[in-house]
Amino acid sequence: MTDHDQKDMEQRVDARIVETLDYWIEQLGRLCAQPSISAQRLGIDECAELTATMLREQGFAAEILPTGGSPVVYGAAPGRGERTLLFYNHYDVQPPEPLELWNTPPFTLTRIGDTLYARGVSDDKGQLITRMAAAAAVRDVLGEFPINLKYFVEGEEEVGSPNIPGAIAAHKDKFAADACIWEFGGIDFAGRATQTLGMRGLCYVELEVQTASLDCHSGLGGSLIPNAAWRLVWALSTIKGPDERIRIPGFYDNAHPATARDLAYLAAQPDQSAEMLETYGVAGFLRGMTGGEELRRAAVFEPTATINGLNSGYQGPGAKTVLPAQATAKVDFRLIPDQTPEEIVPLLRAHLDAEGFPDVQVRYLAGVKPARTDPDHPFVQLSIQAAADVYGGMPIVEPLIGGSGPLHPFIHELGLPVVTSGCGHPHSRVHAPNENIRIPDFINGIKHTARIITRFAEM
Amino acid sequence: MTDHDQKDMEQRVDARIVETLDYWIEQLGRLCAQPSISAQRLGIDECAELTATMLREQGFAAEILPTGGSPVVYGAAPGRGERTLLFYNHYDVQPPEPLELWNTPPFTLTRIGDTLYARGVSDDKGQLITRMAAAAAVRDVLGEFPINLKYFVEGEEEVGSPNIPGAIAAHKDKFAADACIWEFGGIDFAGRATQTLGMRGLCYVELEVQTASLDCHSGLGGSLIPNAAWRLVWALSTIKGPDERIRIPGFYDNAHPATARDLAYLAAQPDQSAEMLETYGVAGFLRGMTGGEELRRAAVFEPTATINGLNSGYQGPGAKTVLPAQATAKVDFRLIPDQTPEEIVPLLRAHLDAEGFPDVQVRYLAGVKPARTDPDHPFVQLSIQAAADVYGGMPIVEPLIGGSGPLHPFIHELGLPVVTSGCGHPHSRVHAPNENIRIPDFINGIKHTARIITRFAEM
Repeated sequence: MTDHDQKDMEQRVDARIVETLDYWIEQLGRLCAQPSISAQRLGIDECAELTATMLREQGFAAEILPTGGSPVVYGAAPGRGERTLLFYNHYDVQPPEPLELWNTPPFTLTRIGDTLYARGVSDDKGQLITRMAAAAAVRDVLGEFPINLKYFVEGEEEVGSPNIPGAIAAHKDKFAADACIWEFGGIDFAGRATQTLGMRGLCYVELEVQTASLDCHSGLGGSLIPNAAWRLVWALSTIKGPDERIRIPGFYDNAHPATARDLAYLAAQPDQSAEMLETYGVAGFLRGMTGGEELRRAAVFEPTATINGLNSGYQGPGAKTVLPAQATAKVDFRLIPDQTPEEIVPLLRAHLDAEGFPDVQVRYLAGVKPARTDPDHPFVQLSIQAAADVYGGMPIVEPLIGGSGPLHPFIHELGLPVVTSGCGHPHSRVHAPNENIRIPDFINGIKHTARIITRFAEM
Repeated sequence: MTDHDQKDMEQRVDARIVETLDYWIEQLGRLCAQPSISAQRLGIDECAELTATMLREQGFAAEILPTGGSPVVYGAAPGRGERTLLFYNHYDVQPPEPLELWNTPPFTLTRIGDTLYARGVSDDKGQLITRMAAAAAVRDVLGEFPINLKYFVEGEEEVGSPNIPGAIAAHKDKFAADACIWEFGGIDFAGRATQTLGMRGLCYVELEVQTASLDCHSGLGGSLIPNAAWRLVWALSTIKGPDERIRIPGFYDNAHPATARDLAYLAAQPDQSAEMLETYGVAGFLRGMTGGEELRRAAVFEPTATINGLNSGYQGPGAKTVLPAQATAKVDFRLIPDQTPEEIVPLLRAHLDAEGFPDVQVRYLAGVKPARTDPDHPFVQLSIQAAADVYGGMPIVEPLIGGSGPLHPFIHELGLPVVTSGCGHPHSRVHAPNENIRIPDFINGIKHTARIITRFAEM
């Protein structure tokens, strides 16, 4: 195909994307209306069925593969060319709580102006729909898929994808491909496209202390009976202090700092510190950081320890005088290459024992390894150029991002270069109330994915 | 009245108590069936009405006095003699949560063998009924009350009685009396009667941290955005460490150690450490204490800081990766003479500021001053002797106990000697699921109160 033919075809695909927009917003509403909260195993099987049905409606052979946890929805359709592109997405969502902070019903797609609201409308149902819409538009224009397309849509990403490495190992041939588009993508605060090349790992644990068989009157036991809430507070305070340095011996041993090339990518990134302060309503960043490369490096090239939740004793209104027998904390560690969740748990256990907290139990809930794709792969450059054409400017390249996902087996088991594409924006409020996407971003995400499909056929 | 006549009369009163037992268990069931959770202001007005109705049924003129918080139920009935005895009780109860740990419905009095179960069956509805039953039995035998009787039944004891000092100051003449029976009483682990002469004070606060305007994805913000849960954990850990010493400067300045007389009382107390360990299912006491006078002194003659509850972020099942914008802790301080809640709050505020936590808000929820009655008052000796006669052995004298109540204005405003009497036992699980009393203890509590009434007429 000549450059001119390619350009002309892409314009016809873009036009088809705009023509079919309302249909795909409807399909997005259909998918968001099915709750699928993996943390609570709520609506998971129903949402897997719906996803398979929607793929079949688009001409894909779809299967629901058991994994031991949430099933994986696998879809495949043949194309004219030899190459195979794999879409990795997930149909599960975060819990919608706190419900009282939502302005619209979380499981009803609601359009206000050019913005669409629902739990999962960005993460990750909206992103999944951009793939379906892009593939359909390309097929409508070309009469067929130009390459083989595969979907790997999992249902436990929001709880750390515990069964995904195993599922990939079990079906390695089925998922074989030449490249992968990852679950998310979109723009930064200034509207520039982003291209993500790596993700931090995750080690998610629950700490629990049980000091007595029943709660005690605080007047009776305050000086005598061990208090689970105090034990938990003291144990947590040994893990990290206000200097933000994680105090678990050995924790940083396998954490590699940013390379010169990473730092060059970071230096080219715009400073979005002001937008971030405004979005989260905070007066300043941790450790007095004010922005610049220092902030961007800290954001991703450092491992973290975050308390996700605390729970103990009486939490209702007013005063209840009770000495709690039980207390729990949810804590996640974000890991950088080459830390692994498997090494962190025993280090944490040894640390708590050494600090005098053998009574604090550690339950490993979820984890994934950190991973980075090879930025020199031609497919990565293809995606970057396609984004430049759709968004009218070179994308921001992120050598590593703060979030986590099961990227490791896709890169290291299936051997795929992995790029990003999609409809997200920095105010999408993923994981928070009033999650949203904007329709212009939705259209651009579809266009970008469509260009990757058509250009990968010619690469 | 001769000693013989007195003894004979007391025997007839005892017999009347046994005859009317079923009626008073029914009345106890009636009172427990009305939820009255002051922490949630649930059923408070209804329970005040019911209490007034029950007093009127016993021939008392009853009024419901507004206080600004839960109303006080005031009841009065004239007697033959000049003296006036005041009963201080409360009709409010602790929240029943955690509901799943109850074996019977918390607001349905349930009898299993000789044990009665319900929220409030001991604290304090059962105790209130012992007063009513005792007064009724004495009147049934004598044809009249031998002394003037007054009831002061409040409805916010479980949230620290914030309006009681004010109510007493406002109605000092109405509540004038010569002596007072406090809201509780009963036996120890070995079945010996107890006689309480003082209570610790309380300063109940809620600490709250808000670090951002919305929760953040933990992968995005972990290195950058202040985490309310971490801030709270670090702030709490500056208040008290595993050595149990409270680190707020000035906190102990007005805390007076036990006197020689206090220590003599403590030395005479039985060692109940084994029973306490078993009741609460704990392996050992704080700071390696094993029992004896050291434990008994620590139990009451030291102020405490107790975390009553922790609340932040995600607390549901599984893993939700969220960096919480808000975190709260409920904390109570038990105070010993002459600490006051009014002095503790600014000390805590100054401490948090000095430790670098000006972002941790302190909300004062409730408090009472510590107070002690005069053990040399003849009324105190009368109650001790009456207990010795009913229970068949000298009661255990507690110069101070760990719990708190609005004792201070009764002793220091109304000028009353205050004793205890009642139906509690150490396994009553007050403030916990499966709160209970045993019928033999209920009978003894009624008998003891009845003897105080008849002997106070002769004192």
